[in-house]
Amino acid sequence: MIATDTSADLVSRLRAVGDERYHDKHPFHRRLVGGALTPDQVRAWVANRYYYQKAIPIKDAFILANLPSREYRRAWLKRITDHDGTQGNEGGTHSWLALCRAVGLDDADVLSERGVAPGTRFAVDAYIDFARRKPWLESVASSLTELFGPPVMAARVAAIVAQYPWIDRAGLRYFETRIPLAQEDAAQALGWVQAEALDAPAQDRCVAALRFKCDVLWSIFDATALSCGVFA
Amino acid sequence: MIATDTSADLVSRLRAVGDERYHDKHPFHRRLVGGALTPDQVRAWVANRYYYQKAIPIKDAFILANLPSREYRRAWLKRITDHDGTQGNEGGTHSWLALCRAVGLDDADVLSERGVAPGTRFAVDAYIDFARRKPWLESVASSLTELFGPPVMAARVAAIVAQYPWIDRAGLRYFETRIPLAQEDAAQALGWVQAEALDAPAQDRCVAALRFKCDVLWSIFDATALSCGVFA
Repeated sequence: MIATDTSADLVSRLRAVGDERYHDKHPFHRRLVGGALTPDQVRAWVANRYYYQKAIPIKDAFILANLPSREYRRAWLKRITDHDGTQGNEGGTHSWLALCRAVGLDDADVLSERGVAPGTRFAVDAYIDFARRKPWLESVASSLTELFGPPVMAARVAAIVAQYPWIDRAGLRYFETRIPLAQEDAAQALGWVQAEALDAPAQDRCVAALRFKCDVLWSIFDATALSCGVFA
Repeated sequence: MIATDTSADLVSRLRAVGDERYHDKHPFHRRLVGGALTPDQVRAWVANRYYYQKAIPIKDAFILANLPSREYRRAWLKRITDHDGTQGNEGGTHSWLALCRAVGLDDADVLSERGVAPGTRFAVDAYIDFARRKPWLESVASSLTELFGPPVMAARVAAIVAQYPWIDRAGLRYFETRIPLAQEDAAQALGWVQAEALDAPAQDRCVAALRFKCDVLWSIFDATALSCGVFA
């Protein structure tokens, strides 16, 4: 067995990336959970984030294609189904569209992507391209923002219920479904990263990949905030 | 409705590609079904073809990533599972390894890929890269060799049973399972190509993609034949 110590170190380093730069620290997110956004600003968030939601199964399919074995592909495949759904179990993207409607957007508007800021596109497209081009271990490491997501999603749901009573609570099902899935996904991905990133250069690349992914999420909030006057 | 006529033309053109250059016309395949191969030459075929089998879910994951909607992804996803399998239903790659054993190869030998000819690697890797880089419609069209596969697989199974009694028949389950799946897959892919390739340039690209894929399969037989003295 190599390096339980360095594996524990790696987990600490990955968690430190989240502590430092996961997007719950972004001013836009702070205002969201603080109840400070106008309805149009909430809509800007939901419409911009749709572009990210739509990208998840695409980046996961690229990661799938780059994985080193059918055992790993078998395990990863469910992530795609979690978002794309199946007949009768419509999946995460469908739930996100329900949130869109709950905040007063209509499907045609959201699907047209006309509310998506260029900076959101650049960030999300960069994430898809990362998954397409990078070694699978880095792409899997980049997914580890899911380590940080569940408590943030839980707090976000509570805040939305408390602060934005005009949003139909049924629209929040995406997050409620997502929390346990994100926990499972994060545990799986972290196990792979711990098992495979055994030397310092590989561990550095995994940490860098997670920083990159945090930058993607952060940039989506930057672009969203600028597009709807939050920083005005 | 656009162009029932050109859609029928397109199907004729696609079928003509198979009539002209599907790999059942390759001298190696003719010798295989004619009973003219030595055991080592049969093994060379099975070991080289393993490299192609292994690539199928990878190229399908790239196609999945490039598809334009979650509806299409939902439909395509099963191809990956058909080959990678699930817990308790081991899938096509696993069945191919059973064929390897039935012809007297051991797993370690096959998995090491030491019997894979360089020309086989180049052809298969080109196919994966095609799926990674090309517009999804061309990749889907390239999969239409499955239009031609089922009768060839059925004849191949019958020939192997008749001509190579030393091969355990249980090893042929891959083809028996694959025939109905290939029929379904081909019908689905052909429907998409007919629905989406509506003008002459798009149809030309689909025909070219199918020719490319036939070249891949043909080259695998070329490289295999050269590596085991069939052309000597």
